Amino acid sequence: MRLIGLDPGLRNTGWGIIDVHANRLVYVADGTVSPASDQDLASRLRDLHEGLAKVLADYAPDEAAVEETFVNKNPVSTLKLGEARGVVVLAPALIGIPVAEYSANRIKKSVVGAGHAAKEQVQMMVGRILPGCAFSSPDAADALAVAICHAHFAETGRRWNATVAAR
Amino acid sequence: MRLIGLDPGLRNTGWGIIDVHANRLVYVADGTVSPASDQDLASRLRDLHEGLAKVLADYAPDEAAVEETFVNKNPVSTLKLGEARGVVVLAPALIGIPVAEYSANRIKKSVVGAGHAAKEQVQMMVGRILPGCAFSSPDAADALAVAICHAHFAETGRRWNATVAAR
Repeated sequence: MRLIGLDPGLRNTGWGIIDVHANRLVYVADGTVSPASDQDLASRLRDLHEGLAKVLADYAPDEAAVEETFVNKNPVSTLKLGEARGVVVLAPALIGIPVAEYSANRIKKSVVGAGHAAKEQVQMMVGRILPGCAFSSPDAADALAVAICHAHFAETGRRWNATVAAR
Repeated sequence: MRLIGLDPGLRNTGWGIIDVHANRLVYVADGTVSPASDQDLASRLRDLHEGLAKVLADYAPDEAAVEETFVNKNPVSTLKLGEARGVVVLAPALIGIPVAEYSANRIKKSVVGAGHAAKEQVQMMVGRILPGCAFSSPDAADALAVAICHAHFAETGRRWNATVAAR
């Protein structure tokens, strides 16, 4: 199964693709979609959508996971982040891929083992969990962390469903 | 020239279409896109996008205008509104239509003549400016007000450009 993790932002949206082989996670690709910031909002959102649509078409993931956004910022930044996040969540939904959401703490706990880990710890653990991965940006590393988190929870969910079904 | 006004919301996004004939504004249609709220965010945003894409395909407006969102709410509502707003702004941008943005005060001033007009005053004036219009919801009325505002500013902009060009 192939997963895409997404870390939304209007300036930089990170993405990371991993394959799940039984208990092994394999790094596939990562990157950042960065619409030129000297455009109007509509053009930035269009570029963001088209960049993500290309990644989804190129790598054809089966499921997507998006980081739940931390909203304790000033309202104008929160609105902007929301605008980007809406477009990011929409892209996989439009091609029929299920989209899961995870809080930042849940992602950190899943990758590092602690909910309040530093950014550097998360990046280091992403590199250890995915050998051969040299992520291209901090946002791409965050996106890979979301994908790793989803791999863990999705696998647990499937085992649980299988156990229930077998009863 | 045909314009679409949009009033974004995750529960209800209002839309209103008007035609601009020289100095006369003619009501064409209005409505509300209301994705079922018992779905996950991705499905709600997909339904919102597909609802707006259908309206844009049915009425083929030349330009779009979106209300700038008032962000002095709690951060969680602001983020949700941002997510809907991103998807609303994206829809016309994806088919190459220019998207203008106007603040609520600018819209009220353009429709009622006062920046702090009550909602009821705006709705009454929308009905007067567009004879024969019986808008289907308060959000649709707000969307028609955005379209009226854009008609005024776009027309002023074109006259100004024409004056400058003729010099």
